[in-house]
Amino acid sequence: MTKPYAIGIDLGGTNLRAALVSRDFEVVKKLKEPSSGLAAGGDVIRLMKAAIDELMSPEVEGIGIGVAGVLERGESRITISPNIPPLNGYSFNDLAYPVPVYVENDANSAALGEARAGAGRNFKNFVLMTLGTGIGGGIIYGGELLKVAAEVGHMSIAADGKKCFCGNNGCLEIFASARAIIAAVVEALEGGAESILRECCQGKIYRITPEDVYKAAFGEGDILSREVLKEAGRYLGVGIANIINIMSPEAVILAGGLVGSWNIYVDEAIKEASKRSFKSLFQGVSIIPASLGDEAGAVGAASLVFNEGK
Amino acid sequence: MTKPYAIGIDLGGTNLRAALVSRDFEVVKKLKEPSSGLAAGGDVIRLMKAAIDELMSPEVEGIGIGVAGVLERGESRITISPNIPPLNGYSFNDLAYPVPVYVENDANSAALGEARAGAGRNFKNFVLMTLGTGIGGGIIYGGELLKVAAEVGHMSIAADGKKCFCGNNGCLEIFASARAIIAAVVEALEGGAESILRECCQGKIYRITPEDVYKAAFGEGDILSREVLKEAGRYLGVGIANIINIMSPEAVILAGGLVGSWNIYVDEAIKEASKRSFKSLFQGVSIIPASLGDEAGAVGAASLVFNEGK
Repeated sequence: MTKPYAIGIDLGGTNLRAALVSRDFEVVKKLKEPSSGLAAGGDVIRLMKAAIDELMSPEVEGIGIGVAGVLERGESRITISPNIPPLNGYSFNDLAYPVPVYVENDANSAALGEARAGAGRNFKNFVLMTLGTGIGGGIIYGGELLKVAAEVGHMSIAADGKKCFCGNNGCLEIFASARAIIAAVVEALEGGAESILRECCQGKIYRITPEDVYKAAFGEGDILSREVLKEAGRYLGVGIANIINIMSPEAVILAGGLVGSWNIYVDEAIKEASKRSFKSLFQGVSIIPASLGDEAGAVGAASLVFNEGK
Repeated sequence: MTKPYAIGIDLGGTNLRAALVSRDFEVVKKLKEPSSGLAAGGDVIRLMKAAIDELMSPEVEGIGIGVAGVLERGESRITISPNIPPLNGYSFNDLAYPVPVYVENDANSAALGEARAGAGRNFKNFVLMTLGTGIGGGIIYGGELLKVAAEVGHMSIAADGKKCFCGNNGCLEIFASARAIIAAVVEALEGGAESILRECCQGKIYRITPEDVYKAAFGEGDILSREVLKEAGRYLGVGIANIINIMSPEAVILAGGLVGSWNIYVDEAIKEASKRSFKSLFQGVSIIPASLGDEAGAVGAASLVFNEGK
């Protein structure tokens, strides 16, 4: 009676990603649509429905949806979605498809994707961190996803530090995310710091990307860029040490755009985490990059269907 | 074939506690021996063996031991035990009892005890924090203990803060433990601060206990005592907020001596956590005291036997 495919949707990033995924977690077909800038929640829903329609067939067991925000899983409802505010309170049960629909947090979905088909396949217990504009997380324990918030980016590592948009002070995300890196670079440049980045983006410093910073640091030896990446990496290491001391995982798997800055940013984080976490726990942990790239979320969301259907 | 009792040993505190526990988690018999100040690991082991001998019978299914430190569970070996250094590397398999022996971290055991027979009985997902000289933790998920380090006291909440003995900087424990409260009081008194605590302990300020501080603050309205407890509570709230944002538990259950200072210390922590954690998550969480008191560890350790034997 079980059908061979599931549809996975990832509403976490700037693109909506959809995938038709087999029971051995192979992506049979995939779609990608720009979703950022869609002001109304309705537009995102319409986009998602179009993607589902294109992938739907009688061979599909169910639909899994990964979405940025805090969820009521039983209700398939989004409690709050900071990045897609029109989705606040939206219930995916309203989609009224003839197959079950499961929702999960986007970083949790990505963790599940890496667990089933990516860098997490060889680990029973790991924590995935998504390092992008913000910082998210997902926790795999005993090979299964912990259905918890895992908002590791909103763990305070500086109790009396700068205010985060979430209301807390000193969140990891303020120090170690892409947003933080760009803010630090822009602030330094505005303050008159010397850097090759002044020549970037035809002088429009607000357009500088983390990739530009990494290229300047690694390729050109730009000191400002290097310092900013190292500082962000150091704080990432504080967060990783906390995760190691609490969850004692076999691996911390790092995903997202910033992983491209491995040689400086992540190296620094690993160095810092090694100094801060319990030695006996650090020795047991692999800190490695994710392997599914942008597909992790959709694959993980699809695998919710096979998981829940068990 | 299953036998009706298990022996639970708690090596976590200043007393060794042992209990004979039934399958419905009733304490049939219990023992308590002062264990702090025993310099050699051998003495602790001897004390424990004597307690086991006294409780042992053909009706005993197995032995569970909760011990402060980081463990290799499969090997029943202590990797590192900061409070009982002679136990570093000790394997409880060497005890050679005719019944299985299980080891677990002491705070994890207490969490399991509260889950089976205490304040955690009505929750599937909770985090226990032990608030004493240090701060420990245990995580219950889906009604079962997560076999992870859960060293929540060694989560840094001040990346560039004071050094902790563990090697990290700014650990929660530095700000919010009994040790931290006493250190703050002593420092203030030495600095000339006015306080009724000067009259405590015949002027021997190093003998002041957290109970003295709480009595002075709550009973006498002593301002220094009040401020110190509130400050420690505020930082505890930072730690609780981090736990809520990561584990989104139904409850945070607080155990240990400092819970006696609920009206000031914990009240402040709850206030701070409510400001810092995601609103939608905070609304779903009960912050409550543990109910088993000093028996939680032994009951939890005993319940390891029934758990693992399933």
